Amino acid sequence: MVIINGGVTAPKGFTAAGTACGIKKDGKKDLAIVCSEHTATAAGVFTTNVVKGHSLQLTLEHIKDHCAKAVVVNSGNANACIGEQGLKDAKEITALTADILQCKPENILFNSTGVIGQALDMDALRLGIPKAASSLSENGSCDAAQAILTTDLITKEIAVELAINGEKVRIGGMAKGSGMIHPNMATMIGIVTTDANLPPLLLEKALKAAVKTSFNRVSVDGDTSVCDMVVMLANGAVAHTPIQSEEAAFKAFTEALSYVCLSLSKMIAQDGEGATKLIEICAQGAASEEDAYKIVCAVAKSPLVKTAIFGEDANWGRIITAVGYSGAGFDPNAVDISIGGLTVCKNGTALPFDENKAKAILEQKEVSILIQLNEGCFSDRMFTCDFSYDYVKINGSYRS
Amino acid sequence: MVIINGGVTAPKGFTAAGTACGIKKDGKKDLAIVCSEHTATAAGVFTTNVVKGHSLQLTLEHIKDHCAKAVVVNSGNANACIGEQGLKDAKEITALTADILQCKPENILFNSTGVIGQALDMDALRLGIPKAASSLSENGSCDAAQAILTTDLITKEIAVELAINGEKVRIGGMAKGSGMIHPNMATMIGIVTTDANLPPLLLEKALKAAVKTSFNRVSVDGDTSVCDMVVMLANGAVAHTPIQSEEAAFKAFTEALSYVCLSLSKMIAQDGEGATKLIEICAQGAASEEDAYKIVCAVAKSPLVKTAIFGEDANWGRIITAVGYSGAGFDPNAVDISIGGLTVCKNGTALPFDENKAKAILEQKEVSILIQLNEGCFSDRMFTCDFSYDYVKINGSYRS
Repeated sequence: MVIINGGVTAPKGFTAAGTACGIKKDGKKDLAIVCSEHTATAAGVFTTNVVKGHSLQLTLEHIKDHCAKAVVVNSGNANACIGEQGLKDAKEITALTADILQCKPENILFNSTGVIGQALDMDALRLGIPKAASSLSENGSCDAAQAILTTDLITKEIAVELAINGEKVRIGGMAKGSGMIHPNMATMIGIVTTDANLPPLLLEKALKAAVKTSFNRVSVDGDTSVCDMVVMLANGAVAHTPIQSEEAAFKAFTEALSYVCLSLSKMIAQDGEGATKLIEICAQGAASEEDAYKIVCAVAKSPLVKTAIFGEDANWGRIITAVGYSGAGFDPNAVDISIGGLTVCKNGTALPFDENKAKAILEQKEVSILIQLNEGCFSDRMFTCDFSYDYVKINGSYRS
Repeated sequence: MVIINGGVTAPKGFTAAGTACGIKKDGKKDLAIVCSEHTATAAGVFTTNVVKGHSLQLTLEHIKDHCAKAVVVNSGNANACIGEQGLKDAKEITALTADILQCKPENILFNSTGVIGQALDMDALRLGIPKAASSLSENGSCDAAQAILTTDLITKEIAVELAINGEKVRIGGMAKGSGMIHPNMATMIGIVTTDANLPPLLLEKALKAAVKTSFNRVSVDGDTSVCDMVVMLANGAVAHTPIQSEEAAFKAFTEALSYVCLSLSKMIAQDGEGATKLIEICAQGAASEEDAYKIVCAVAKSPLVKTAIFGEDANWGRIITAVGYSGAGFDPNAVDISIGGLTVCKNGTALPFDENKAKAILEQKEVSILIQLNEGCFSDRMFTCDFSYDYVKINGSYRS
């Protein structure tokens, strides 16, 4: 597998576009379309929030047949909690897009991200959809990646190439997400494309496996949105022998897909609202898979840990405290903690350490925290970011 | 029941003291003793964190006989995660205090609050304990309330008087807690005294009931400390007919105690690190007690809700989002949300509201959020505070 330039249009047979239709008041791009030349096999992972955006609800219906031709996403408005109008508007958008792209409305997947509780600006979208559709191109992935952003500062794109049954196939992806990021679901909007050929059930299996260790292992603020989804289109544009079972080719494909998803996830954590540092939290030696997950989750969510890392303060007491209330079972007298390779706690007890060395580690842009439980053989890993003044600033005035 | 002046020394037969022994580098008070003239009945509620401070571990042993004469608390150092030395030091403190107060070491309850992972400054404490003990007085409650503070800005004290079986009895309390505050336990240090006469099991029952709706319903940052406890001493100094069963007198006593605990809890939320507002979150009409709790808990912990309130932004989308991922079961199309009495969401749908009115409500120092599920008859309530720049500032450099 090699990393190549580009994003969702790197695989054959995909085009994309991103335009400004007027939903965002500042004139920034707010409408993206990713389109496959031929109808593709589709799979998705969606928010587990009981409250779901209207656009997302429609997409949950449309993906049931495992087929899609295009994904439409608007930013600036979540189309959530506005009653019957929300579903009606979502249906109109998919019908309009299907009409232009000459497919069934059911083959359009639609999602919206932004403020909750305001009706979509349908006049803007009615003009925007044809405009975006007419500018679909193989060079449009960067525009599309820009158009799905909300409070994100950077676009998030990646593409890889690998050999499947002797032929080169590609996987490309883009994502948005900066706040309201926590697992239990897809935790953001991600769109992944591939020109590989594999049946719906294997595509779904590969996507779920990849999401589990990537998008579902990112936390910015512990809040999980009502519009989160990761969808994937596989159009089989490369004429390789199809992946038919969980053979070596499936394994290679899943690994490459996991790499794509993990790369996008780390970009999300790194670009977390107000973030100055990417934090990787690993739990090792846990008694069960569930315990390992609970521990990385509790540490990644702790505002006290996140503010300490922002302040470049090796306050590991807050880490062991979060481990302690995580709900995981463990012996507090057997826990070791290290920060960037520097052991600060051994057998649950403070270890004298060089504060200057700790400071040098914490001044880096990427900080890793390792919690060794010495209980069993299970491990987990989660990515998060630090908590800064800017997180408060960004979120104190989001609607206005 | 009437509110009276004073704190833990308002009930008969209690003295208190607070001194600066040198644990805190800035010369502020850091050692408190609350003492009963005669050995009192004792009850306590303690942290559920798997990791427990060494002082707290010893107190868990000492309270097993339901008797105590005094409570000793040092601030500035949590005496946690420092290995065998921690328990040894805690034992020396209780032995030293018992020697001076002429009781068994088991009758001394000891706790420590502050930084984790540093050994207690025993030289300071060996000089401090006799000094504090010698200044025990009926006027010492305010000094004691100061000496238990860490990042708190204000002391937290209250006292009430009520009639039990024809005699006037009093309940007094003090508390500390500003960060690392979240339920699942006592969530801070609280010391409550009374001159009422009741047996250990009833005292424990009353305290648990009071803590459930007060100290266990406060969240500042979702982090739960390793040193949290609420302990209560009842010395029976007022010669009333003892409370012997769950009769009317017990009910009146529990109600007054709940008032004391709730008042202290609200002071803690109001004084949360960096807090500018006290937020009361109510869930009503939930399908079960557990669902109601999950909902108030999720909303109280959400950094996005807390930053929105700091920014005086009526962003109720974040409230319904937190309700949605709380884990509670409910119909998203039946939820009503109001902020300070202003309904902003009805049947899960945005309601047009006057932004100026919302702004006026959010400019107040106390903001209430009501979530009506329209599912059943269970309700719950939690207090929290907003999330400000100062929370980040305070916690980015706590150790230094």
